[in-house]
Amino acid sequence: MKIAICGAGTVGTGVAQILHDNADLISLRGGEDIEIAVVASRRRPLDGPLQGYEFTSDLSSVCERSDVDVIVELMGGTTDAKRLIEQALKAGKSVVTANKALIAEHGDALFDLAAEHKVSLKFEAAVAGSIPIIKVLRESLAGARIDWIAGIINGTANFILTEMASEGVSRSFEAVLAEAQSLGYAEADPTFDIDGTDAAHKLTILGALAFNQPLRFDQVHIEGITEIEPSDFKFARAFGYRIKHLGVARLLGASLEMAVYPCFVATSAILSGIDGVLNGVLVSSDAAGETFCSGAGAGAGPTGNAVVADLIDLHRQVLGPGSDALTRNDQPLKVLRPEETKAGFYLRITVEDRPGVMSAITTVLADFGISLDKILQEDAANHCATVALVTDPILQGVVEQAVAELEQHDAVLGKIQKIRVF
Amino acid sequence: MKIAICGAGTVGTGVAQILHDNADLISLRGGEDIEIAVVASRRRPLDGPLQGYEFTSDLSSVCERSDVDVIVELMGGTTDAKRLIEQALKAGKSVVTANKALIAEHGDALFDLAAEHKVSLKFEAAVAGSIPIIKVLRESLAGARIDWIAGIINGTANFILTEMASEGVSRSFEAVLAEAQSLGYAEADPTFDIDGTDAAHKLTILGALAFNQPLRFDQVHIEGITEIEPSDFKFARAFGYRIKHLGVARLLGASLEMAVYPCFVATSAILSGIDGVLNGVLVSSDAAGETFCSGAGAGAGPTGNAVVADLIDLHRQVLGPGSDALTRNDQPLKVLRPEETKAGFYLRITVEDRPGVMSAITTVLADFGISLDKILQEDAANHCATVALVTDPILQGVVEQAVAELEQHDAVLGKIQKIRVF
Repeated sequence: MKIAICGAGTVGTGVAQILHDNADLISLRGGEDIEIAVVASRRRPLDGPLQGYEFTSDLSSVCERSDVDVIVELMGGTTDAKRLIEQALKAGKSVVTANKALIAEHGDALFDLAAEHKVSLKFEAAVAGSIPIIKVLRESLAGARIDWIAGIINGTANFILTEMASEGVSRSFEAVLAEAQSLGYAEADPTFDIDGTDAAHKLTILGALAFNQPLRFDQVHIEGITEIEPSDFKFARAFGYRIKHLGVARLLGASLEMAVYPCFVATSAILSGIDGVLNGVLVSSDAAGETFCSGAGAGAGPTGNAVVADLIDLHRQVLGPGSDALTRNDQPLKVLRPEETKAGFYLRITVEDRPGVMSAITTVLADFGISLDKILQEDAANHCATVALVTDPILQGVVEQAVAELEQHDAVLGKIQKIRVF
Repeated sequence: MKIAICGAGTVGTGVAQILHDNADLISLRGGEDIEIAVVASRRRPLDGPLQGYEFTSDLSSVCERSDVDVIVELMGGTTDAKRLIEQALKAGKSVVTANKALIAEHGDALFDLAAEHKVSLKFEAAVAGSIPIIKVLRESLAGARIDWIAGIINGTANFILTEMASEGVSRSFEAVLAEAQSLGYAEADPTFDIDGTDAAHKLTILGALAFNQPLRFDQVHIEGITEIEPSDFKFARAFGYRIKHLGVARLLGASLEMAVYPCFVATSAILSGIDGVLNGVLVSSDAAGETFCSGAGAGAGPTGNAVVADLIDLHRQVLGPGSDALTRNDQPLKVLRPEETKAGFYLRITVEDRPGVMSAITTVLADFGISLDKILQEDAANHCATVALVTDPILQGVVEQAVAELEQHDAVLGKIQKIRVF
């Protein structure tokens, strides 16, 4: 099999390294050598393992080459990468990509194009690096009815939350982000990692696969991690939780919750133990119960490994037309608005430290039918106190109304912090 | 696709239940209905979901039927099941099986037979129930060089160890085994679960896949959990470990360790958190780092789900001859004898409580070049004391010699307990 590697960044370098280092294994296991025919990139010079191959800066030329069987798209972005993949599929070449944004935002049209031209578009590397969650959902759980998926699917956000949670230190979001950048765990522009966009791209793909839905990135509810403060970690610990940024796709009756947000996760739950830059995905289904996978979510090796696995799959299987497309239901499910979903909620309320305040707060909550699971008050300086509490499961819309009313109360100071409980 | 279900026990019932409950999903995702043409079993009456299908007690008749595409072997055992599978493969029918003993002991010949007749022999259900570890090893990590696998792959043993480790109670192995039997987590004859044979069958398969080796069940070193005593859990906790029964396949230079044994596993390690009847498998490779999967290791749903996934795979892929066989290296690696492997060891030594005993013990260990990581002495009644210690990594053969010499010492009472540290 001869491939064109398009994009000469971290993942492209990782793929070339694996193909070089493990050529013997790949040939033995896959039954065929995988050779790099050409590297296409607008960037030069090429890094170590990409050196020595034929090079071109003319991306579209690789789709026309008869000595290229598969196009490996590792450029990222949704304009040039989209044009390249469309051109490749139309030229009858299968494509392997790691491009989560492109699949999440334009995948349906691309899968249709692949089916039309009887080639494959594979994307294991687009979600959660070395964790084979695409394969697990589509193949291992093909016979199971999935109830929900919950995953830690952004390593940068998970690293920041893990560091902020370290006992004995109290560091701001900004301080930890700066550390993550200096360690190379966060990019110079970390916007998509910390505002939830990257996780939402991945969740779009996982939810579509699990529930046979169209890819609807624009309907995913997105919250990032920028609003979480050091004291939230302290209260989480006191209540028996850790704070994780989760992507959640969940069937609720005949509708779907599709969301990414920070969550309180019980210390005893397997997801709460996934720390640092690791990713972890938990899938609950009727037949298999809870299936969990974790591993490195990004990086040259882990993401490169997923690309190579897709390439070997392409060779091993003689694919029917479009057999790698997402299988979609004819009638897509309604995606719920956030206020229609139900969860327990952690609230952190800064109040004036005077008699009757706790009674006033609990009365407002009771009036909204919100019952409490845990509550903790801590006095602060300047006649202030913090009330932290965890509610029983309740509609998010109801909690939002209660929070709005509480914020009007003259004893409540500033904004109320609100984080879901998973 | 029309199948014959051979064997009407728990897993056969589970497969029928899934095919019935999720027929819509399977048809949508797999692109074809999976129908049960006939159920073959020597046992009657059939349970719930298996009722209403054509039934035969003549197992060999199903292989000759033109309306059966795939034989699903769920009888267990290595004699009748082997005969059935051979007959099916020779008749040009692909086979899906959950039979770990058969694959571990006779798999190589059966895969050769499948390749010869250009059909498939699939066995995801043979190892760790709902955990798709066969697929992960063979497909997701096809491009990665695996360093080691460590897995909790027997749910019964894990349940017993979890219960024995419960804080505040001290229950004997026998008492917990009786509880497991009453809960249905251990069979009436639990021999293979507690003596390590079942885990060794699974480890044989995982090791062969990971390292492209022949299936060599007879070369796996096997230790069960019957020798572990309540006090070992107490010392494990004190030293920061939990006790887990692991299957380990590990590349050491140009040789392989292939073994199942109880281990001290650090409390912070992901495997130590896998409790009760759950299974968990950790794979370390050059490209992907550490990939972890956990889930239900047995039962009608989880194992049935793995069978159904194999059936859907069979339909989706137009397989080349023998493409589901294990890919074997021409030159198998040497499997190490246990004494040639290296690990830290926990030792528990009952001694007379008199001056100079600790010095005598540590002197013997020092003479063998064994250095200590942790040590703890606890006085008991009747002028006895218990010395518990954890060594630094050392050849098992050296530890065994030291233990033999210590057991000769006149201050050492009875047998010394010895458990590996993972």
